[in-house]
Amino acid sequence: MKNVLRRINTPSRVVVAAFLVVVVVGSTLLSLPVAVEAGQRASWTSALFTATSAVCVTGLAVQDTATHWTLFGELVILALMQIGGFGIMTLASILALVVSGKLGLRARLNAQAETRTLGPGEVRRLIAGVAKVTLAAEALTTAVLAARFFLGYGEPPGRALYQGLFHAVSSFTNAGFALWPDSMMRFVHDPWICLPLVVSVVVGGLGFPVYTALRRGPFHPGRWSLHARVTVGMTAVLLFGGTLAVLLTEWDNPGTFGPLPPGQRIMAALFHSAMTRSGGMNSVDVSQMHENTWLISDVLMFVGAGSASTGGGIKVTTFALLGYVILAELRGEPDVTVGRRRLPEQLQRQALTIALLSVASVVAGTFVLMMLTPFKLDQVLFEVVSAFGTVGLSTGITGDVGTAGHLALTVLMFVGRLGPATLGAALALHVQTRRFRYPEEGPLVG
Amino acid sequence: MKNVLRRINTPSRVVVAAFLVVVVVGSTLLSLPVAVEAGQRASWTSALFTATSAVCVTGLAVQDTATHWTLFGELVILALMQIGGFGIMTLASILALVVSGKLGLRARLNAQAETRTLGPGEVRRLIAGVAKVTLAAEALTTAVLAARFFLGYGEPPGRALYQGLFHAVSSFTNAGFALWPDSMMRFVHDPWICLPLVVSVVVGGLGFPVYTALRRGPFHPGRWSLHARVTVGMTAVLLFGGTLAVLLTEWDNPGTFGPLPPGQRIMAALFHSAMTRSGGMNSVDVSQMHENTWLISDVLMFVGAGSASTGGGIKVTTFALLGYVILAELRGEPDVTVGRRRLPEQLQRQALTIALLSVASVVAGTFVLMMLTPFKLDQVLFEVVSAFGTVGLSTGITGDVGTAGHLALTVLMFVGRLGPATLGAALALHVQTRRFRYPEEGPLVG
Ligand SMILES: [K+]
Ligand SMILES: [K+]
Repeated sequence: MKNVLRRINTPSRVVVAAFLVVVVVGSTLLSLPVAVEAGQRASWTSALFTATSAVCVTGLAVQDTATHWTLFGELVILALMQIGGFGIMTLASILALVVSGKLGLRARLNAQAETRTLGPGEVRRLIAGVAKVTLAAEALTTAVLAARFFLGYGEPPGRALYQGLFHAVSSFTNAGFALWPDSMMRFVHDPWICLPLVVSVVVGGLGFPVYTALRRGPFHPGRWSLHARVTVGMTAVLLFGGTLAVLLTEWDNPGTFGPLPPGQRIMAALFHSAMTRSGGMNSVDVSQMHENTWLISDVLMFVGAGSASTGGGIKVTTFALLGYVILAELRGEPDVTVGRRRLPEQLQRQALTIALLSVASVVAGTFVLMMLTPFKLDQVLFEVVSAFGTVGLSTGITGDVGTAGHLALTVLMFVGRLGPATLGAALALHVQTRRFRYPEEGPLVG
Repeated sequence: MKNVLRRINTPSRVVVAAFLVVVVVGSTLLSLPVAVEAGQRASWTSALFTATSAVCVTGLAVQDTATHWTLFGELVILALMQIGGFGIMTLASILALVVSGKLGLRARLNAQAETRTLGPGEVRRLIAGVAKVTLAAEALTTAVLAARFFLGYGEPPGRALYQGLFHAVSSFTNAGFALWPDSMMRFVHDPWICLPLVVSVVVGGLGFPVYTALRRGPFHPGRWSLHARVTVGMTAVLLFGGTLAVLLTEWDNPGTFGPLPPGQRIMAALFHSAMTRSGGMNSVDVSQMHENTWLISDVLMFVGAGSASTGGGIKVTTFALLGYVILAELRGEPDVTVGRRRLPEQLQRQALTIALLSVASVVAGTFVLMMLTPFKLDQVLFEVVSAFGTVGLSTGITGDVGTAGHLALTVLMFVGRLGPATLGAALALHVQTRRFRYPEEGPLVG
């Protein structure tokens, strides 16, 4: 194990250290009296939890954002979301650059064990690229939302702009914080609010390598990298598959979709499907959903969004890759091929490792939280997957899991945010050269 | 997919057909009036459910075995368990022979896509071998149990012998049916009952290829096949690890271990740990266990026992193999090696396929059962994993899931019993030859 820790070195360690620093600074700012509204009880655990939740763009909240925190506190949260979202997209992209040599991702893993050094120009271009996309997307969403708050809800221009900006950042970074105690439930009927948020969350969740690939011709998938094709395809499958599944399980639930006309049920289902991976806002009451909808959500939250994106989870490519392996195996094909490309064996093992260690983290987290709280498996599992997948949806128990429970969730959010990406890079960067091979022999399986 | 179905052909299809025939015959016998005690309501669903549960050596029961069924009915169940247990051990061993060429399992998968034809002599020797081990183990357990029922509980000799035989067969075949409504709870204090049952279940769960290997020197693991070493090692880890975990979560639970003296708590923990993989008897009240013990049990039940054994689950070798892949990946080793042997890439993909399709089956089963019943995730998941892993433990909801629920569990028991073994064989037997290769390219993962 020492060997493993030693090898998760320079690039991955820098990422972890950077996030830790921001969490510490954010917690300190949020524990200042000026951050907390008069009459509200300040506590270091809620400051730590909220700062971690914002930096990890998770969005789980122990306090109602609007009533607990002052405008200063809200601005700190806004800044932390922006830094966290921008940070993970940039740092994960740099890790990918280090790993693959170029962002097109061709030839990834060909140079076994050789780490390319990145030129400062390359990193600067990448940071500028992420900044450009982030600002453009957030500006557009801010404009649409602010216009709607101003025209449709009669908010004063300054307030409308602030609300638009806050939720534009919160959605593009996939953070999911909201300035209303019921998240987006009051806007469940309003496509001018719901749809921009869905688009912003989905775009933020595609990831920087996809934007780069799309520039080669947004409507010519043949020109994209394999990574972009798999990410976009799988995102569409999960988004619309999830919408359909949620529609079926919630259709006539009086606590959620029941009171809505059919068109709005479809919009609410799309909203929930998009937000499980890993936007984290809700336009209906999650605590009133059918247990099966929770189960569907657990799966979607665990899979998450795209690599080097603001979203979390094991990533859609990891999930898709395991599916391709199974398909090849069922077909009896010796190679795993996707779109006329052969997936390296090493990459298959990486995907397996990331997925199974993530399962282990979720099981361990569930175990710990069940020890610490009186809640049942359904709610605890949902909360743990939501924290690990940096989603931020909750069946309503976040505030009631106690101090130890909050610390457990804090750790889960941090591990879930940085684990898959840094583990993936660490695994890819450190493949030892083969000195000799043992003879082949395998046990029976199945 | 048609391609897949076509290739799950001769050997695997024969196995499935054989089990179906026995289920149909067993259901017919159990639906005869002579099988059901006077005053009990006979029904075709309970006959079908019980016959499937017995043939698949699962042990889930919708009816209390002793009070619902007549002696004739009990004997039918006894025969079905024996046929099911003997059948799966023999047929899975034959599949393994077909796959590997020899039972030592060396050179498995070397001969890609070439199916060896088995000589009738080889099959006859194998059947004789399985019969010898089964009868020897069951005779020994019968003797010990019968002596105890006669000497310790004053049962008349004939009755003691019948009880001894029934539970010897039920334990060695990992079926888990019992002649008392509380399973083995009345014997929780009695090592002369509990320990023989544990040994019988564990030995039955090792599987025939392990017995063959052990004959080369029971105390010289160096002479065993890799399969035997991995199976025995992993069985020990899960057995004692499970005991420790259950001890920790149940230590002072007043509904289970609380009233017992410390020594008996350890025995009860060992009993539960052994029975989750996949014996299925219980010596304490499973419905009173802590939810975390259910979670631990879910994991143990899912992993199950050895390949070509009477136990179920994805099999300990499948589980261990995935662990070795992760370990190799974390260490950055290009090959996955176990005990100076290199695991074939193809075998890694098979293990992954079996494990993930099993996860999918459990998730789908859970989803369906939650649709059909009012029970919560914790109990439903336990029931589904128990059925799929052919374990037979229950939190007490088996009788209350309704006719549709019973049919769903029936399907799960059947799929769980035959799925992993036949899938493993089908995958191993049908590897297409490679005609050309695409260039390598992989998406980012994690
Ligand atoms: K989130
Ligand atoms: K069983």
